[in-house]
Amino acid sequence: MTSAPLYVVLLHHPVYDKHGDVVATAVTNMDVHDLARIGKTYGVNGVYIATPVRALRLLAEKILEHWRSGFGAEYNETRREALALVHTVVDLDAAILEVERSAGDRPVLVATSARDANERISFAGLRSRLATSGAPHLLILGTGWGLTKEILERADLILEPIRGVADYNHLPVRAAAAIMLDRLLGSV
Amino acid sequence: MTSAPLYVVLLHHPVYDKHGDVVATAVTNMDVHDLARIGKTYGVNGVYIATPVRALRLLAEKILEHWRSGFGAEYNETRREALALVHTVVDLDAAILEVERSAGDRPVLVATSARDANERISFAGLRSRLATSGAPHLLILGTGWGLTKEILERADLILEPIRGVADYNHLPVRAAAAIMLDRLLGSV
Repeated sequence: MTSAPLYVVLLHHPVYDKHGDVVATAVTNMDVHDLARIGKTYGVNGVYIATPVRALRLLAEKILEHWRSGFGAEYNETRREALALVHTVVDLDAAILEVERSAGDRPVLVATSARDANERISFAGLRSRLATSGAPHLLILGTGWGLTKEILERADLILEPIRGVADYNHLPVRAAAAIMLDRLLGSV
Repeated sequence: MTSAPLYVVLLHHPVYDKHGDVVATAVTNMDVHDLARIGKTYGVNGVYIATPVRALRLLAEKILEHWRSGFGAEYNETRREALALVHTVVDLDAAILEVERSAGDRPVLVATSARDANERISFAGLRSRLATSGAPHLLILGTGWGLTKEILERADLILEPIRGVADYNHLPVRAAAAIMLDRLLGSV
């Protein structure tokens, strides 16, 4: 049984805001750190932070640099290890290129959404696919009020939403990522 | 089949720092919001933020107030709903009292730890216990480098750690809480 290399990209654009307008959200320090630690825990091959805003990419790079080789690397070893997974990119296309360069193949695009609809792949379905396929997969997470229709349409697969016990579906993207990776890769 | 009321408390003291010293950590805005949304998603009955530092409790209360009945309540409805679950307390004993007042019974204390050891209850074991018992349970999460030995000894049960694919076990407490609640209460 092979196991597919899995990559994660967090898109800060194009995503919706609460009014359904397409926006670019701000990169948050907490998202970068949490995705790094969660990714490291589940053996993810790479985490991409995508934003078209150059100043935010530079800021993220500066934070990464601090923890990877600056003072932070010595101060906090587990943070250094986790942040070694993280790279900044301009957009989804740049993330795809990076995965292709790293894994040797164009990744299968797996979009995520908190909204249910037809033709969603189940967690069990994707888990089994990842366990048996050798092809790299790129899990696409959206900030704000979620990925735009265009991104969903471009994806090869759309993962079913996480359902809680009621109708409330407003998990922070950090929490959704943790739950998704646990369901897809966690030891059971 | 009954279902046990589940409560969560996030302890900021007593917990270890990276050197193994017992400290009080700072309450972070992000932990409060994330635990609220995660708790709301999985139908948790209450979330307690415990710190002995009065100024930090007041700060947390001010933030809660803003989103529950201030400007934020109208601005962001889903955040209001989630934060309605959250209360601040001085320490674990105060949280126990609050649960007792809310649920009518003293809760079963379930500690959590990233370290493995003997006599840990499995996720499946606790899930089945929660699904069939009517007794309130209080899940105790630690900040910093984790709950002290004294808290673990005081607990009725200690939940097994979340294991990733390698030896890396440094999940943010927000991510650990999301994964735990999904494993314990998520629809499968």
